[in-house]
Amino acid sequence: MERIPILKMGPFLLVTIQVDLYDRLALNLENDLITMVSKTGARGVLIDISAVTIVDSFMGRILGNIASMSRIMDAETVVVGMQPAVAITLVELGLTLQGVHTALNVERGMDLLYKKTDVLLDQNQEEEEEAAEQDPE
Amino acid sequence: MERIPILKMGPFLLVTIQVDLYDRLALNLENDLITMVSKTGARGVLIDISAVTIVDSFMGRILGNIASMSRIMDAETVVVGMQPAVAITLVELGLTLQGVHTALNVERGMDLLYKKTDVLLDQNQEEEEEAAEQDPE
Repeated sequence: MERIPILKMGPFLLVTIQVDLYDRLALNLENDLITMVSKTGARGVLIDISAVTIVDSFMGRILGNIASMSRIMDAETVVVGMQPAVAITLVELGLTLQGVHTALNVERGMDLLYKKTDVLLDQNQEEEEEAAEQDPE
Repeated sequence: MERIPILKMGPFLLVTIQVDLYDRLALNLENDLITMVSKTGARGVLIDISAVTIVDSFMGRILGNIASMSRIMDAETVVVGMQPAVAITLVELGLTLQGVHTALNVERGMDLLYKKTDVLLDQNQEEEEEAAEQDPE
């Protein structure tokens, strides 16, 4: 298939990478993601790579590109679900995934995004903060 | 790749199908899902098929199987993101996806699961309901 589906989950976008990223697929993913961020006003992008067993410099660059592009569009990027072996390979290759945040799994990645983007979890929290602003004592 | 990743999102599991399901992959998915439902105590399973362009009776049967197995484990199944062409094909083939709930996208699927499973959205809601129970007037 030529496209990786992008799921909208509240204020964030979720992408699960299940296939090896070759040139065209990676370019499509970059384009689709940026278009979706712009269209939906998403504040964060979660990329799940738990099915990825081999990571090379190309993959590393794609993840870095997505993070840089998203940041320009005011969205944070978190890569989640990296397998231990992939982390080992990344370090041995000297790839540091600069500018990319990581988290153990989707739930922790979501928490990280909520913290990083100041998106409020629910309406009550929002109301409490508004009340606190109006009443500084 | 031999396995489709299953993501845990709060009380639900999320699966994105991006590749054609052949026999072994489908069997692995069924096994993995049921194991995950049992291990995590998940109350619902969301299956995103927005990347699926061709659906046949095999695919229909797999979705039905997953729904039946999940129900035995006390979890509801919702299929989301079906493309219009796929829906047309399903009806023309006479496949009705019995026992499978559907929703337009992940967000609506999530809402449907919350409604079907009585899982509460947040702590406040829970407290309100408890208060209502204790004070019947």
